[in-house]
Amino acid sequence: MAIFLRQSDPDFERQFQEFLGTKREASPEVDATVRQIIADVRQRGDAALKELTLKFDRADLDRIGMAVTPAEIAAAYEGADQETVAALRFARDRIHAHHARQMPKDDRYVDPIGVELGSRWTAVEAVGLYVPGGLASYPSSVLMNAVPAKVAGVERMVMVVPPTGGGIDPLVLIAADIAGITEIYRVGGAQAIAALAYGTETIRPVSKIVGPGNAYVAAAKRQVFGAVGIDMIAGPSEVLVVADNGNDPEWLAADLLAQAEHGMGAQSILISDDADFARLVEAAVERQLKSLPKGELAAESWRDFGALIVVDSLDDALPLVDRIAAEHVELAFDDAEAFFGRMRNAGAVFIGRHTPEVIGDYVGGSNHVLPTARSARFSSGLSVLDFVKRTSVLKLGPEQLRQLAPAAIALAKAEGLEAHGRSVAIRLNM
Amino acid sequence: MAIFLRQSDPDFERQFQEFLGTKREASPEVDATVRQIIADVRQRGDAALKELTLKFDRADLDRIGMAVTPAEIAAAYEGADQETVAALRFARDRIHAHHARQMPKDDRYVDPIGVELGSRWTAVEAVGLYVPGGLASYPSSVLMNAVPAKVAGVERMVMVVPPTGGGIDPLVLIAADIAGITEIYRVGGAQAIAALAYGTETIRPVSKIVGPGNAYVAAAKRQVFGAVGIDMIAGPSEVLVVADNGNDPEWLAADLLAQAEHGMGAQSILISDDADFARLVEAAVERQLKSLPKGELAAESWRDFGALIVVDSLDDALPLVDRIAAEHVELAFDDAEAFFGRMRNAGAVFIGRHTPEVIGDYVGGSNHVLPTARSARFSSGLSVLDFVKRTSVLKLGPEQLRQLAPAAIALAKAEGLEAHGRSVAIRLNM
Repeated sequence: MAIFLRQSDPDFERQFQEFLGTKREASPEVDATVRQIIADVRQRGDAALKELTLKFDRADLDRIGMAVTPAEIAAAYEGADQETVAALRFARDRIHAHHARQMPKDDRYVDPIGVELGSRWTAVEAVGLYVPGGLASYPSSVLMNAVPAKVAGVERMVMVVPPTGGGIDPLVLIAADIAGITEIYRVGGAQAIAALAYGTETIRPVSKIVGPGNAYVAAAKRQVFGAVGIDMIAGPSEVLVVADNGNDPEWLAADLLAQAEHGMGAQSILISDDADFARLVEAAVERQLKSLPKGELAAESWRDFGALIVVDSLDDALPLVDRIAAEHVELAFDDAEAFFGRMRNAGAVFIGRHTPEVIGDYVGGSNHVLPTARSARFSSGLSVLDFVKRTSVLKLGPEQLRQLAPAAIALAKAEGLEAHGRSVAIRLNM
Repeated sequence: MAIFLRQSDPDFERQFQEFLGTKREASPEVDATVRQIIADVRQRGDAALKELTLKFDRADLDRIGMAVTPAEIAAAYEGADQETVAALRFARDRIHAHHARQMPKDDRYVDPIGVELGSRWTAVEAVGLYVPGGLASYPSSVLMNAVPAKVAGVERMVMVVPPTGGGIDPLVLIAADIAGITEIYRVGGAQAIAALAYGTETIRPVSKIVGPGNAYVAAAKRQVFGAVGIDMIAGPSEVLVVADNGNDPEWLAADLLAQAEHGMGAQSILISDDADFARLVEAAVERQLKSLPKGELAAESWRDFGALIVVDSLDDALPLVDRIAAEHVELAFDDAEAFFGRMRNAGAVFIGRHTPEVIGDYVGGSNHVLPTARSARFSSGLSVLDFVKRTSVLKLGPEQLRQLAPAAIALAKAEGLEAHGRSVAIRLNM
């Protein structure tokens, strides 16, 4: 049973704080193991990759090859359901169209005293994309990570994916192809992250690594950070549905379960201004759980982390929504736009009764890689900005230098940096 | 003596790679100590802060107070050199004007099938700014960190600074006041980071922490990351000067020394197409070192990490510049704009013979918090973007949902996520 909180309860603030602080993720101590794996790959390159892949994935790269071949991609298409392939292309096009609007513009200008200033954006040259094996191997995530990089102008996209059980999900290969990835290696785990960061004989290093992964992959990304850039470390997924009683409880129950079926700490929360309605949604969740193939996984998430919160009015929900700072927020009531206008913290917002969060997972066009675990208070979902970097530009002539010199020299002196002052003064014979 | 490399040397590539790989920073093992300090502050709050400040900074917060008072700010102004205060205001205004142009714009639009999409930016609510004590306490850095936050609309800026030796540099207090910071606490080290991240009785927690610090501060920032956002972990500063022989060697020597005098692993590099000219710059460096108050510190940096690299032509410098990916790059030759147009990796570029890097440290208007240690390959200097976050928005009506549903349901099915498909289908009686 999910927890049921009422704002009118005198103990509500304490309960809500405890709820906010709930840890939904085990953090196994894998740092030492990962450190060894990375050192091994740095030292022995491909040989280490092959040994570790044999050990962890039970796949012999000498036999099946490290690089995925064009023939394998072609074979994947042949065996695939054509409707699914078309859906991937449809999703790619919508994601591309939305992300193209995010491309930042260069800015170069001259200020009133003639100083030229500017910001110039360039793409990261090479990016590695980690794709997990097994259950968490989602073709949609390949698109969500690769398409913004392509839009940004990244020239080299390298995908790594473990050959868990000997193979790679053909739809992952198809999604990579549809996203324009041409370099794919059959390696996973911390060893794949090490290869991307430091390079081996076969895999040239990249400048940034993105994509989800298990605890080993997350630890490896943290450890190579600095040598390369990394994206956020994604935690368990979460949805917060804010709804009045004008909704069909079955619809909202389906939304809550769509999140819960991810398992692994996934969290589903309903906030409503009607306690009876919240109970109806809860009952619908219990009912729908029975007919779900992943019912057990979803039931576990719902029981451990699910929550129904009853507020006095939807206005009262606003500060709670900002404190939860959820990855996904559905606003299922009539004046949702006004509410959204006053909201502050959320990865993505889904407005109105006909915008289930799942649309954003696949074909809305916005990105489904979003900040989790309350990090929407300070961070954003994946975008084109994650694949570009900005260089600032300054350009002065002698006259501009003369005008800026006194303040620069005064500050250098105040900070005790004599050579700083000299580097300005020497150009003006001061 | 700085190293002297020639591209024409058959062994150049190996030497250059070794140069690129030089570690300029000791990484003392402070993780365990920092972990204890953070746990202590989380558990005992102010009491822990007071004990740790007495221990590390030899300052009694019960006596001098934790919060800096308006009277102290006023006293700082009274004792200050008025030219320096004016220079800080001048710098603040220029930094503000430049950063105001970085404010990202919201984007809300309707696509051809009627789906509403959008990106909305909001400011991080509360930001903590760490300012080191002692030698590395720079008023200019207070401006560089605080002004972009103010431009972004951050409502609460909290500054922490250790009362090393009992006091705080008055110019740091003045810079904070000029930048609009009204909440300042006399705490430093890992304990200050813990207080900002988790809060104490006196210090309410923030959502993001920025600013430079020593190894303890850096380790603490890494450890609290996730609970709050952090900025980059800045390494030793560096300048790369690309110059032909049409420059005054003394000017460039002054620029190289302005970087070197930071000490602590600072690096100064000259790339030139004229070996004789490079030798002239080297001689000028040695000469100027003798009359520098911080000559010993600068000499050490120059000896340990300085480099002169001679290329066959400035065109040949381009790939080296991108591989070095320096924090600061000066382009001191005639067709520098064309060169810049082809460059890719740099934190900030200073174009022409009259744009010493030092102008960017203080009064150019651009930010001086920039990516170091080759991280300009994948990251950018501090900007307004570091103090805002983006929420994506989707809004569908029944007709749009109908059009997107088949592809969403097909992908959910392909990924084995039954409840995902149901959350769409249930709204359409499918």
